Amino acid sequence: MNRIDHIGIAVTDINKSNDLFAKILDNDNFKIEIVDSEGVITSSFDLGDSKIELIAPLDSKSPIKKYLNTRKEGIHHIALYVLDIETEMVRLRKEGIRLLNDVPKKGADNKLICFLHPKDTNGVLIEICQKL
Amino acid sequence: MNRIDHIGIAVTDINKSNDLFAKILDNDNFKIEIVDSEGVITSSFDLGDSKIELIAPLDSKSPIKKYLNTRKEGIHHIALYVLDIETEMVRLRKEGIRLLNDVPKKGADNKLICFLHPKDTNGVLIEICQKL
Repeated sequence: MNRIDHIGIAVTDINKSNDLFAKILDNDNFKIEIVDSEGVITSSFDLGDSKIELIAPLDSKSPIKKYLNTRKEGIHHIALYVLDIETEMVRLRKEGIRLLNDVPKKGADNKLICFLHPKDTNGVLIEICQKL
Repeated sequence: MNRIDHIGIAVTDINKSNDLFAKILDNDNFKIEIVDSEGVITSSFDLGDSKIELIAPLDSKSPIKKYLNTRKEGIHHIALYVLDIETEMVRLRKEGIRLLNDVPKKGADNKLICFLHPKDTNGVLIEICQKL
């Protein structure tokens, strides 16, 4: 694993949280992106080599909507940057870590992503990602 | 805010989680540290400009023990590095963000730290920290 790519924070109201995190981080977001495949709208803030990514549901079918129905707003996942996602997936499987995706899928920010099973990672939802 | 200093993960068994995260990150920890003031033992992994910090309780009075009594293992807080913690504390208060510490306190890794009230940060426990 190379570095922390981003920390994903689940929020209900993207505009409200956008204003809030601009205050906290003393910096405006640099991008709003709709990821149709995940049913979410994201807002990204630069933070050194990493990013803070706010994630709000676009509709009731969004996984983030289901997450917010049962849990409070807060940290949803952390994403770790890797140079070769397929090699990392093979390595993690060999270590006994279950993956939530059989093959890498297309995520926000023009990246290939794969999630690790949180039951195999001390309850932390970890994404690995690689630039396409 | 400068960069993500670390992501703090609450765990019950530091040795077990240490082995697990060495597998996940494909890298051994570089430090074990006991922070008596917080009643915790921490294990740190380098990850680019940031770190992953596993935190386990040392005793039943530890805030992490109380956290683990009511919640599951998982991400406990994120820490953002700042160049001047006192100036940041003044700025955040002006923005209406409540702070959990009136003055900076001594944390792990020879740092001054201060926590932001999670009710003012979308449920995310955010620490700001500065090297002593």
